[in-house]
Amino acid sequence: MGRVTSRRRVLRVVDGVSSARPDTLAVEEPLEIRVNGQSLTVTMRTPGADFDLAAGFLVGEGVVRHSAQIAAIRYCAGATETGENTYNLLDVALAEGVAEPDASVRRNFYTTSSCGLCGKASLDAVRATAFWSVRDDALRLDPAALSRLPDRLRAAQRVFDRTGGLHAAGLFTADGALLCLREDVGRHNAVDKVVGWALRQDRLPLTATVLMVSGRASFELVQKAVMAGIPVLAAVSAPSSLAVDLAEEQGMTLVGFLRGASMNVYTGAHRLGLGAAPELVARG
Amino acid sequence: MGRVTSRRRVLRVVDGVSSARPDTLAVEEPLEIRVNGQSLTVTMRTPGADFDLAAGFLVGEGVVRHSAQIAAIRYCAGATETGENTYNLLDVALAEGVAEPDASVRRNFYTTSSCGLCGKASLDAVRATAFWSVRDDALRLDPAALSRLPDRLRAAQRVFDRTGGLHAAGLFTADGALLCLREDVGRHNAVDKVVGWALRQDRLPLTATVLMVSGRASFELVQKAVMAGIPVLAAVSAPSSLAVDLAEEQGMTLVGFLRGASMNVYTGAHRLGLGAAPELVARG
Repeated sequence: MGRVTSRRRVLRVVDGVSSARPDTLAVEEPLEIRVNGQSLTVTMRTPGADFDLAAGFLVGEGVVRHSAQIAAIRYCAGATETGENTYNLLDVALAEGVAEPDASVRRNFYTTSSCGLCGKASLDAVRATAFWSVRDDALRLDPAALSRLPDRLRAAQRVFDRTGGLHAAGLFTADGALLCLREDVGRHNAVDKVVGWALRQDRLPLTATVLMVSGRASFELVQKAVMAGIPVLAAVSAPSSLAVDLAEEQGMTLVGFLRGASMNVYTGAHRLGLGAAPELVARG
Repeated sequence: MGRVTSRRRVLRVVDGVSSARPDTLAVEEPLEIRVNGQSLTVTMRTPGADFDLAAGFLVGEGVVRHSAQIAAIRYCAGATETGENTYNLLDVALAEGVAEPDASVRRNFYTTSSCGLCGKASLDAVRATAFWSVRDDALRLDPAALSRLPDRLRAAQRVFDRTGGLHAAGLFTADGALLCLREDVGRHNAVDKVVGWALRQDRLPLTATVLMVSGRASFELVQKAVMAGIPVLAAVSAPSSLAVDLAEEQGMTLVGFLRGASMNVYTGAHRLGLGAAPELVARG
């Protein structure tokens, strides 16, 4: 875990009085993900759980959904002029018969060729790609159990987050037991790492689980949860309009502003025993 | 501004008691940026100031640095099957003689072909592309003036942020006067919008200005500030290791955890009259 944080000297200023002191920062380094030797993406991430990150990214893009679809993941040696391994370049070898993603893989989630670029097209693109349904499950959650998740996330996070600079994503059972926690400077990376962990344990689809994120809920995070079959996404902060639209369309429960004993339930309130979804999602 | 926020009905739960109420969400919609008719990128953004967003994005990528290098920006009509304009597809026509970016434009900021993929390669890539220097200026700032910026940012933000879901970027003079504020669901988009506003007013390089962001300071945000010639970046939250490294290399002043009368000065403390930079940036 040595590369997850980095020490720097910093000048701390309080009321105009300054003092030098050491500070712990979250490490940010580029990671290039290759698939069968072809470069797919470069992301700025916090090193650690890189294999999970790569695997989870490919789940999100609809490339894989079972661990057997990945033959191997390895760091590429000789990445520098001196042949040193930077551990910033991964190659994912797909199993035989698994279709390679094309270079436009990411763009395909935001638009489809048949219609224009708009929120609805983005929803259509997810619908066309999603393999699992998160709609029809028997999962029921106690709101009080949900309210305990932020503290549990933070407690687990505290172990190695001394930087104030990391996003966290935690996967919980319906009872509130933590299955997996991952942190990253990038919110989407933290979620990819959790989903990749699950894929590599062959736990997909992640039925009857709750994904809790430390920040906001964007379209992209809901999309990643859909692709992993996660029926409940809870965020400490606000969702965007398109995040709510996608959660509604997919039948996901989306909770925002989960703080203390209060929360906002945007979609899928029936899982919390709180009333009919159709009324909730009617536009005001 | 009608599309910046969107109303939904939400179930508010406090201590197990629920009540339906209207809620205001930040709108998130895809925007495709084309250059001379060729698709360059798709970003999820909050509609509004889209021309600024596109222009600022191109500054960040090193494509343009004067307003005259952009011949025109226009929404593409007929973006849907029914010919409706979604206002989610922009085309930027570059002036004659301005080199078009290639498809790998973004990747070039994270890596160079001559060496492996690592933080240092990312710093090298910015150095190779940056047109303005932010190192040698006579700018001096009063720490007390810096401390007033978060409140000013928030006060300006409050006008149309009722969602809790928007990142803000504000450009200030050295005296703390607000020049431009932009908000977006994406932190990088908010900065692009500010930089694009400045480009379109032919204000680049943005010497003697301070860019204040509502969240964390990543490598990407420091890189965007460098490309716009902004010498001071201040963030409410933590910087990453690579953000500090890039700011140090470029001679930028980077301030984090700017809250109330306190702040952490990571690099360029000389501009605040606070001591020598070399000592500060020595690794602990």
